[in-house]
Amino acid sequence: MTAYAPETPDLLTLDPEAQDLLFREARTANTFTDEPVSRAQVQAIYDLIKWAPTAMNAQPLRMVLLESAESRARLLPLMGEGNRAKTETAPMTVLLAADTSFHEELPRTFPHATGLKDMFEDNAAARQRTARLNSSLQVGYFILGARAAGLAAGPMTGFDVDAVSAEFFPDGDHEVLVVVNLGHPGEGAWMQRLPRLDFDEVVTAL
Amino acid sequence: MTAYAPETPDLLTLDPEAQDLLFREARTANTFTDEPVSRAQVQAIYDLIKWAPTAMNAQPLRMVLLESAESRARLLPLMGEGNRAKTETAPMTVLLAADTSFHEELPRTFPHATGLKDMFEDNAAARQRTARLNSSLQVGYFILGARAAGLAAGPMTGFDVDAVSAEFFPDGDHEVLVVVNLGHPGEGAWMQRLPRLDFDEVVTAL
Repeated sequence: MTAYAPETPDLLTLDPEAQDLLFREARTANTFTDEPVSRAQVQAIYDLIKWAPTAMNAQPLRMVLLESAESRARLLPLMGEGNRAKTETAPMTVLLAADTSFHEELPRTFPHATGLKDMFEDNAAARQRTARLNSSLQVGYFILGARAAGLAAGPMTGFDVDAVSAEFFPDGDHEVLVVVNLGHPGEGAWMQRLPRLDFDEVVTAL
Repeated sequence: MTAYAPETPDLLTLDPEAQDLLFREARTANTFTDEPVSRAQVQAIYDLIKWAPTAMNAQPLRMVLLESAESRARLLPLMGEGNRAKTETAPMTVLLAADTSFHEELPRTFPHATGLKDMFEDNAAARQRTARLNSSLQVGYFILGARAAGLAAGPMTGFDVDAVSAEFFPDGDHEVLVVVNLGHPGEGAWMQRLPRLDFDEVVTAL
C-alpha cells in the first residue's frame, strides 16, 4: 500500500497501480545495486516514449549511453561533487541532450511544413529555444519511461553543462540538459520525501 | 488493439494498456466535443504529476486555467492563427508557465540546502535556466497526466510568448511555455501520425 493515496482516484483513468509505479511510489534513487541495465532496456524506454508529443514533431532529444568504464571516467570530474559517487556506481548513466540541429530532420519528420527547415536555419535563437523546450519535455517523458521499465531513475542537473556538452558532443550543436542514472535502488537509495506545492499555490483560474 | 504494438514488451513493467493510454494510442487532439472538463479534473492531474521529480524539488510550473469566455477572449488574438479555432472551442485551456521566482519557495520545498534561495536571488540567469528546464519537465509530466485522466491534450507552442506572458502574468516573473487544450476528441481530431526517429538515430553508446 502506498503512503500517497490518490487524492481524487475516481477522476483518473490510469490504473492506480500504474499511477504508483510512475508517480507516487517512484522516487529519485541515490544508490543502486549491482544489477545491470542493458542497452535493450533503454531502447524499450525510448520506443515507448518516442510517441509522446513534441512541437512540430521535432524530437530534438539525443542520448549518450555511458556503458564503459572509460566513458564514465570522462564524465565524473565534470559532475558536481555530490553527484560523483552515485554516478560512478550506477549500472547505467545516460546523457540527455538537446540537438540544436534538429531542424535538419524536419523535412522527414514534419514533411507537410515546407520551408520550416530554412526558417530555423536562419534563426539560431529560435532553434535553441525550440531544442531546449522540446528536449526537456522528452526528458520528462524519459524519466517516467524509465519507471515504466521498472527502473529507478536518478536525474541530475548538477554538472558543468558546457564542459559535458563539449566532451561528448564535440560538434558544438548539442547541449546536455540532464544526466540520468538508471538502475535498481540500493541501500539507502531514498532521501526524505520533500513537500510538493499544493494545487491552489500553482493555479489561477480565470 | 493498437496499431503500435510494443516493440519490446517483456522489458517494460508498466501494463500494456497503460502504455497505450499514455504513449501509443494517445494523440494530440485538434478538435474537441462539447463534453466539459472540470477544475477538479485538472486538480486530479496535478495531484498525480506533482510527485514527479524536479531539480532541487523546485517545482517552478505555474498554471492558469481559462474557464471563462472572457479569459479565453484575451488569449485568442495572441495565439498563432492556426491555433485559434481549436483553442476557442476546447472545453478547457491551460497556460503552463515557468515561475522565475520559484526560489522564494525553496526554504520550504528544499529546506536542507540553506543559502540556495540567496544564490538564485543573485543570479537571474541561473534562475531563468532552472525555471525553464524544470517547468518543461513538468509540462511533459502534465501532458501524460492529462492522458492518465482520460483526456486528450492538445499542446501548442505557436503563440506570442511575450504577449501571452505579459497578459496573464503582469508581474513579469513568469514565462508561458506551452498552452494546452484539454477535452475529449471531436470529429477529425487527429492529424496523420508522423514518423518518429529510430533509437539508432538518437543514441550513441560509449
